[in-house]
Amino acid sequence: MADSLPVLVVGSIVLDSIRSPYGESKAALGGSAYYFAAAASFYANVRMVACVGEDFPDEGRHFLEKRGVDVEGFVTMPGKTFAYEAEYGDDPNHRVSLRTCLNVFEKFHPVLPPLYRSTPVVFLGNIHPALQMEVLDQVDSPEHVAADTMNFWISRSREDLERLLRRVDTLFLNDSEAKELTGEKNLIRAIRRVCEFGPSTVVLKKGEHGAVLYRENTLSVVPAYPLEIVRDPTGGGDTFAGGVMGYLARAGSFDRKTFQEAMLHGTAAASFVVEEFGPKRLMQVTSERLEERLRTLRAMIAIG
Amino acid sequence: MADSLPVLVVGSIVLDSIRSPYGESKAALGGSAYYFAAAASFYANVRMVACVGEDFPDEGRHFLEKRGVDVEGFVTMPGKTFAYEAEYGDDPNHRVSLRTCLNVFEKFHPVLPPLYRSTPVVFLGNIHPALQMEVLDQVDSPEHVAADTMNFWISRSREDLERLLRRVDTLFLNDSEAKELTGEKNLIRAIRRVCEFGPSTVVLKKGEHGAVLYRENTLSVVPAYPLEIVRDPTGGGDTFAGGVMGYLARAGSFDRKTFQEAMLHGTAAASFVVEEFGPKRLMQVTSERLEERLRTLRAMIAIG
Repeated sequence: MADSLPVLVVGSIVLDSIRSPYGESKAALGGSAYYFAAAASFYANVRMVACVGEDFPDEGRHFLEKRGVDVEGFVTMPGKTFAYEAEYGDDPNHRVSLRTCLNVFEKFHPVLPPLYRSTPVVFLGNIHPALQMEVLDQVDSPEHVAADTMNFWISRSREDLERLLRRVDTLFLNDSEAKELTGEKNLIRAIRRVCEFGPSTVVLKKGEHGAVLYRENTLSVVPAYPLEIVRDPTGGGDTFAGGVMGYLARAGSFDRKTFQEAMLHGTAAASFVVEEFGPKRLMQVTSERLEERLRTLRAMIAIG
Repeated sequence: MADSLPVLVVGSIVLDSIRSPYGESKAALGGSAYYFAAAASFYANVRMVACVGEDFPDEGRHFLEKRGVDVEGFVTMPGKTFAYEAEYGDDPNHRVSLRTCLNVFEKFHPVLPPLYRSTPVVFLGNIHPALQMEVLDQVDSPEHVAADTMNFWISRSREDLERLLRRVDTLFLNDSEAKELTGEKNLIRAIRRVCEFGPSTVVLKKGEHGAVLYRENTLSVVPAYPLEIVRDPTGGGDTFAGGVMGYLARAGSFDRKTFQEAMLHGTAAASFVVEEFGPKRLMQVTSERLEERLRTLRAMIAIG
């Protein structure tokens, strides 16, 4: 940790109510910043920019503090926390949103604590691209900027998103987002064309089909961790990104080989999250269990 | 070749008419036995059991002969060749069948030439499981039996299929087939449960998402070859199986490591087929080009 580059994350903190064929959760801790920070904190010092309402449970903040996350930029505002309701059927890659109440998040305009402004590694979690930009504007020449986005912003806030992407080094997105952003129907062409928008690196998240890295004109793949039960896929992608960026920050390097290794760590971290509703499993996981899953992943791709 | 174990294949020979967003083909050479034999013949001596009608073009047979395929069991019957029509949209993993005319295939009951009866490696391509069994019954204690099947047989001829599977070592199938066969909605559980039907090894074909091997209680994955254009996915799975089984036969070994390597070869072979309508590209491909794609695949999964 001491040697790790610090990582700044901005994103949502949400109380998630999720139904899946395996059960349901009510107002569980969640949101892109929450999952990202929980995973990245295994590897790096994380500085969090986010807001919650007065209804946010203390245990949520305590868990982050226990994991060493700097919560100076994590503010409580009058009103209610961002609340989200969604449902999954048998396909864990397909979610149906039922209700999205931004609540306090609607008026959130973060002012970064002074220490945060010199953070070398920045992750802009999936929120409005204008808000992502607001945060990025407050950071002095970061070394590496990564971002996540979603179809909603690609279609509704395209200009803001395109402006942001010009300043992003690594973009995390899924198949359908890559296709929508670029207008390409072929996935490989879509991945390559994402770079025309600014990012030099693309991390494509394919859920149960693993992830693809495009960096230095080269494609690499990692498989998903093989799970027999996926109870709640929510937060899987943000946890994955947290593992990836946390590992990179600890390594202090962003070359292709380090990225590939980082993707295995992100995959292992994400595998715990999706096994249970909310971040429960990730809150309990030990480095030993993480290491065990990394070994399985390595064995799955070892040839010869 | 000389050192390779011979491989027996039975399956369909079809004249395919395919439409995709990239164009169309009319009565192109195809069928499970055709694609399998074309690919496997890069590695092994292939013995083919199949039938065509009098309308089958000479070039189809000539190509196989040129590749050293033993066509003694490849018979011409009075009538027309099996004809198939299908269409793809933007998703290469999703095909809509428009017309299936079995023609001569409807009455096909193969009698194996004497030499064929002692073939050590058998591939039962995707045809009626009772017909697959008829062929298998004529082979004396084969060393390794692999088979392919499809949803149609799983739902319509389940008893025949289950009877066959008890004698199959390796089953090739795709995600939805694995789920339908086992009744499991989770892919990893489905893969493992396929073995309860008899096979010790499962090769799961996921098209653009690559393939998964389950053998000796261990999962391995290979990525798909990254293609910017997939004009006609027809035959991709059979070509993949041809590469896998051909490589195994040449290696004379069926252990997990050899299987993993074989899957890379199958992937490389399949990548050529789907780039063009029909088997055209596969007919032209050289060992050098195949080797080039293998290198790309290896680089995609090389960690550290």
